[in-house]
Amino acid sequence: MTAKIARFLEEVRPATPCVVVDLDIVRDNYLGLRHWLPLAQIYYAVKANPAPEIVRLLAGLGSNFDVASRPEIELCLAAGASPDKVSFGNTIKKKSDIAFAYDKGVRLFAFDSEAELDKLAEAAPGSRVFCRILMTCDGAEWPLSRKFGCEIDMARDLLVAARDRGLEPYGVSFHVGSQQTDLGQWDIAVGKTAMLFTELNEVGIELKMVNLGGGLPARYRTDIPGIDRYADAIMHAMTNHFGNNLPAMIIEPGRGMVGDAGILETEVVLISKKGYDDDVRWVYLDVGKFGGLAETMDEAIKYRIVTDRDGGAAGPVVLAGPTCDSADILYEKAGYAMPLELAVGDRVRILSTGAYTTSYSAVNFNGFEPLKAYFI
Amino acid sequence: MTAKIARFLEEVRPATPCVVVDLDIVRDNYLGLRHWLPLAQIYYAVKANPAPEIVRLLAGLGSNFDVASRPEIELCLAAGASPDKVSFGNTIKKKSDIAFAYDKGVRLFAFDSEAELDKLAEAAPGSRVFCRILMTCDGAEWPLSRKFGCEIDMARDLLVAARDRGLEPYGVSFHVGSQQTDLGQWDIAVGKTAMLFTELNEVGIELKMVNLGGGLPARYRTDIPGIDRYADAIMHAMTNHFGNNLPAMIIEPGRGMVGDAGILETEVVLISKKGYDDDVRWVYLDVGKFGGLAETMDEAIKYRIVTDRDGGAAGPVVLAGPTCDSADILYEKAGYAMPLELAVGDRVRILSTGAYTTSYSAVNFNGFEPLKAYFI
Repeated sequence: MTAKIARFLEEVRPATPCVVVDLDIVRDNYLGLRHWLPLAQIYYAVKANPAPEIVRLLAGLGSNFDVASRPEIELCLAAGASPDKVSFGNTIKKKSDIAFAYDKGVRLFAFDSEAELDKLAEAAPGSRVFCRILMTCDGAEWPLSRKFGCEIDMARDLLVAARDRGLEPYGVSFHVGSQQTDLGQWDIAVGKTAMLFTELNEVGIELKMVNLGGGLPARYRTDIPGIDRYADAIMHAMTNHFGNNLPAMIIEPGRGMVGDAGILETEVVLISKKGYDDDVRWVYLDVGKFGGLAETMDEAIKYRIVTDRDGGAAGPVVLAGPTCDSADILYEKAGYAMPLELAVGDRVRILSTGAYTTSYSAVNFNGFEPLKAYFI
Repeated sequence: MTAKIARFLEEVRPATPCVVVDLDIVRDNYLGLRHWLPLAQIYYAVKANPAPEIVRLLAGLGSNFDVASRPEIELCLAAGASPDKVSFGNTIKKKSDIAFAYDKGVRLFAFDSEAELDKLAEAAPGSRVFCRILMTCDGAEWPLSRKFGCEIDMARDLLVAARDRGLEPYGVSFHVGSQQTDLGQWDIAVGKTAMLFTELNEVGIELKMVNLGGGLPARYRTDIPGIDRYADAIMHAMTNHFGNNLPAMIIEPGRGMVGDAGILETEVVLISKKGYDDDVRWVYLDVGKFGGLAETMDEAIKYRIVTDRDGGAAGPVVLAGPTCDSADILYEKAGYAMPLELAVGDRVRILSTGAYTTSYSAVNFNGFEPLKAYFI
């Protein structure tokens, strides 16, 4: 927790639950990425935290933006980003939304299927397009399904088809999985990408860009490598497979940009046991799976959690949210322990909650308001 | 789909995604429950669908309300319910919210722990309280964890303690699991409850009420017994264990009241394959797990899905939502098939989506607006 957030929580005592984001950390993360990966263009993945305060800050620093939807495009333009800094990175777009983006000046689009190419050729003629390829990456904490991307041989054909339909086959994207901590995965992914560059070169298409996606982690319960080691892994993979003929590089940090910048302040609503023989306490917080902590689904993301009573004796707990939904449990198997002295009404801090929290929050499940946020 | 909803969709052609709820069905369900379970008081579980239109309708019909939070109390009172018709059924309440409820005239509260009893004794003196007991019920489609309720022997002691602290130990509640289709579970649960009544009688406490919770199903992909058979099972269990000395009975239908009243209209955004050898199509809709279909988590609730092209040849599909989240997949293992002629832009209807959809919807994940709803 930063001194700035600590002071804010101390002085303001905001109603819980809420997230407090230290914008200085976002700035530091952006500048850190610029420093360690000077050859890469940074496209902030707006979906990680679409707060106007964050988008404005990053627009001012010169960042580009990876957007998922029409409202995210509007958000970026309103925050001062020019349309040539926006990449419509969702491979699943309505044609009307592609047309909207094109009309606003966006000229960079993701796709991974022929049907999407049809829409792009009609609604965004002449635009740069990049094809997302499937990766089966181990080592990511947030699961990566086959939802995005296509097989390499299909990607090759689609990029040829893109040229034939008047689009500019610009590059290839992949994603090694959010919160990816196995640095070797980058080498595998870049290797496949380089092969695709070569194949397309043989049919007269010179791709110009590799979109390395996201995957940069925030600091949850498990230790993670520093950003410098990520940068090393990425640049080593790129030079290993592309030599000194490096294409343009795009990275799309979301979690890695804003995750560690936020703290979620919550309150203990109830502590109980289910029976006299239980040795596990149930600790119910005023935030849960439907109030912003959706990434605890299947206990995937394991946040660090701190209280003012840390340091003394602790015991095992199940952590749950405040709703009447029996699935609204944060951690039951992950082995969390909390102070034995923890009491109803205590404030609890959930760290690294700047990404994928506020916007996941349910609109009014069980009557609870969406998670509030402060940007300081 | 009702004729009224069909006409609305045809004439209005609302932007997708949206839920359309036929209030006549809600009324019919309420009256049906009254008919089949005339001895039970109906407490509508507001969390299932907190739309003011539904709460007003049910308040007008004389329904009681099971609420989960302070905003839900405000909603019910604003809709014309008197506070003596409101049960604060969440076992996890802030003391300030209990005080708010008490101040508004609410006098019926759930609890399952000593710490909650402490709050109730202080903030709601003299109120009727009922203790929720743990059930381990098979047969429910939506998982029931140990989050709510306590062991029977603890419940006994807590109800004695309630009396000693100036509260009225009023009854016992349990929940057989949402979407419970094994009717035998009611007998097991009522049997345990009756034993608790007897034990407390021996120490001079006459409990007066059994809260049978929810569990009444909506019609998803699996066939379900009719409401008459549920009523039979419940009344059989009650008379089996309580004889002709029946206590007051409360039921808390949420899903069973509004689930079947709603249709979710959505649009096909993309249909694709991941590779040339795939025999499964990916069908991407403009609604997903974070846009209102949270109950597809682990493919628990399997909605019926219809299109205008049904009837011809069909093939296997993976169904996914429109966001850039790789976890936003509705059904991958549940074996859904859709028409081979299905095309991008087609409208698709997801049935029985009146409960646990709109309020679960994320506030703006990926920039998408919360799920819209129409009440007709």
